[in-house]
Amino acid sequence: DPNLKVFTLNSNKGLASEIAKFIGVELGKCSVTRFSDGEIQINIEESIRGCDVYVIQSTSNPVNEHLMELLIMIDALKRASAKTINIVMPYYGYARQDRKARAREPITAKLAANLLETAGATRVITLDLHAPQIQGFFDIPIDHLMGVPILSEYFKNKVEGDIVVVSPDHGGVTRARKMADQLKAPIAIIDKRRPRPNVAEVMNIVGNIEGKIAILIDDIIDTAGTITLAANALVENGAAEVYACCTHPVLSGPAIDRIENSQIKELVVTNSIVLDEEKKTGKIVELSVASLIGEAIIRVHEEQSVSVLFD
Amino acid sequence: DPNLKVFTLNSNKGLASEIAKFIGVELGKCSVTRFSDGEIQINIEESIRGCDVYVIQSTSNPVNEHLMELLIMIDALKRASAKTINIVMPYYGYARQDRKARAREPITAKLAANLLETAGATRVITLDLHAPQIQGFFDIPIDHLMGVPILSEYFKNKVEGDIVVVSPDHGGVTRARKMADQLKAPIAIIDKRRPRPNVAEVMNIVGNIEGKIAILIDDIIDTAGTITLAANALVENGAAEVYACCTHPVLSGPAIDRIENSQIKELVVTNSIVLDEEKKTGKIVELSVASLIGEAIIRVHEEQSVSVLFD
Ligand SMILES: Nc1ncnc2c1ncn2[C@@H]1O[C@H](COP(=O)(O)O)[C@@H](O)[C@H]1O
Ligand SMILES: Nc1ncnc2c1ncn2[C@@H]1O[C@H](COP(=O)(O)O)[C@@H](O)[C@H]1O
Repeated sequence: DPNLKVFTLNSNKGLASEIAKFIGVELGKCSVTRFSDGEIQINIEESIRGCDVYVIQSTSNPVNEHLMELLIMIDALKRASAKTINIVMPYYGYARQDRKARAREPITAKLAANLLETAGATRVITLDLHAPQIQGFFDIPIDHLMGVPILSEYFKNKVEGDIVVVSPDHGGVTRARKMADQLKAPIAIIDKRRPRPNVAEVMNIVGNIEGKIAILIDDIIDTAGTITLAANALVENGAAEVYACCTHPVLSGPAIDRIENSQIKELVVTNSIVLDEEKKTGKIVELSVASLIGEAIIRVHEEQSVSVLFD
Repeated sequence: DPNLKVFTLNSNKGLASEIAKFIGVELGKCSVTRFSDGEIQINIEESIRGCDVYVIQSTSNPVNEHLMELLIMIDALKRASAKTINIVMPYYGYARQDRKARAREPITAKLAANLLETAGATRVITLDLHAPQIQGFFDIPIDHLMGVPILSEYFKNKVEGDIVVVSPDHGGVTRARKMADQLKAPIAIIDKRRPRPNVAEVMNIVGNIEGKIAILIDDIIDTAGTITLAANALVENGAAEVYACCTHPVLSGPAIDRIENSQIKELVVTNSIVLDEEKKTGKIVELSVASLIGEAIIRVHEEQSVSVLFD
């Protein structure tokens, strides 16, 4: 369909190529560079008038550069008369700033939603939002994809034996439950508690992990403090071995060192965020979300074409 | 007035301190840092409920970081019940992307205006916009200050003799005329022309510069190509000496080298953009816009207080 155009910005070029191949289109021609003073310069090098445009960009680190590239691209597409501007954001940056945890904090996840709509986005396709409530920050349609099936599929083929899926905190139990269903396994929960103020946290494990293969699952692994402490606690408490997985490998600061020095045997992630070369240690396995996202684009585009027929 | 609060972000802390001192207030307490993954973390550390808040931030290089700091700060102030959120932007980044010069370009100067309003800004105070039309990109009040009087004042005290004020291109003639009025001097214009395609540009000088002290004036000096070529052409054509000045010293890429190796005797700039240490060569003189901006804040605040009396 000549009205379907897929563009990539700078955050996830490899994934974007895979997605374009999956859909069976060429990536749209555009250059996204910097002027001498650091300002973003975008040139869209083919007509997109009347087209359904999909722009692939994660707001991963450097988040502010990636977000501004996206906003400026949306502005350019809008002024060039795109029919729809669909943002494909495998990783939604600032998602952890989704509420006022303290007085006078910003809610940057909501601000980002407002900025995308103001620029001219007409739809968002995203993956494993840190909080599903972020869907409600948008007044445009949002498609929320799940990474868990891809991670489950990997472990189905990889691990033999007695599995337990473990949530590293209370917030992640729903996600662990979903993976456990797919692996037909039980769940356990790491129940961190501080017995008294100014006393170290205790890693209490709720559920039976004795002699089992534990799979820790989270949505984001950032500095990897929580997940590596959890892995070590699992081994100390009798787990046979520990795998970890997440959709979004932020992996900032001490993350890689902590993982290397932990009891985690393998960390399975997706390519929603590009892994720099120095992060690709032997422990890390990367799965692609290209077909998941490609299918979503095809489905959304069919829906948009249908609506045109009936308009 | 306890209802007047001045905050600074990271672009112009020195200028912000000067402005606060001029007005006679302490800078508001807030921390603007980064999480481990590069996301901006802002904590406003004092109540601003019901206050008129002034936030000082230029969207200078790194422009995307500075713009996002500003947007997130505005979001936090809005949610903390500020009465008015007044953005003091000595340098307005992306101002040169103020029109579609080619097909399918963004108009990022307008996008930035929309983003500031969406975040919650209620007023903007700025200095020497690259194009005065950018005022019309806003639907909130905008105060547009002029740097020319500060630059003129400096040269009045500095230079003795027969002066000519020179615009380095046709776009800057109005600005040169203003300075010439203040210095009671005539103007000249550098009239760059390309006689035929693929032939080098000719620097034609319109006006009499023979034996005079030429003062080149521009709004922004970025890579300094235009201004240094102009300065050299002036000397070749008989100017006695050449000064240059501008409001906004972007000075990116080869700028400092070009200025050092040019016929420019002295480059006079303002502190709308902070000069990195390595840019502070012997040729560069920095003037402060603190009192200009401080006066504008006092004037705006009086107006806002008055409107409260009569509401
Ligand atoms: N980029 C970030 N890195 C670390 N912490 C963050 C980040 N963004 C927000 N937060 C904090 O993380 C907390 C929310 O995380 P969570 O409880 O996992 O939803 C809030 O207190 C935020 O202030
Ligand atoms: N940061 C920048 N550095 C250099 N050129 C720019 C920048 N932003 C926009 N431009 C270009 O500068 C031209 C406008 O400059 P002017 O003619 O001086 O108003 C347009 O063609 C823009 O594409």
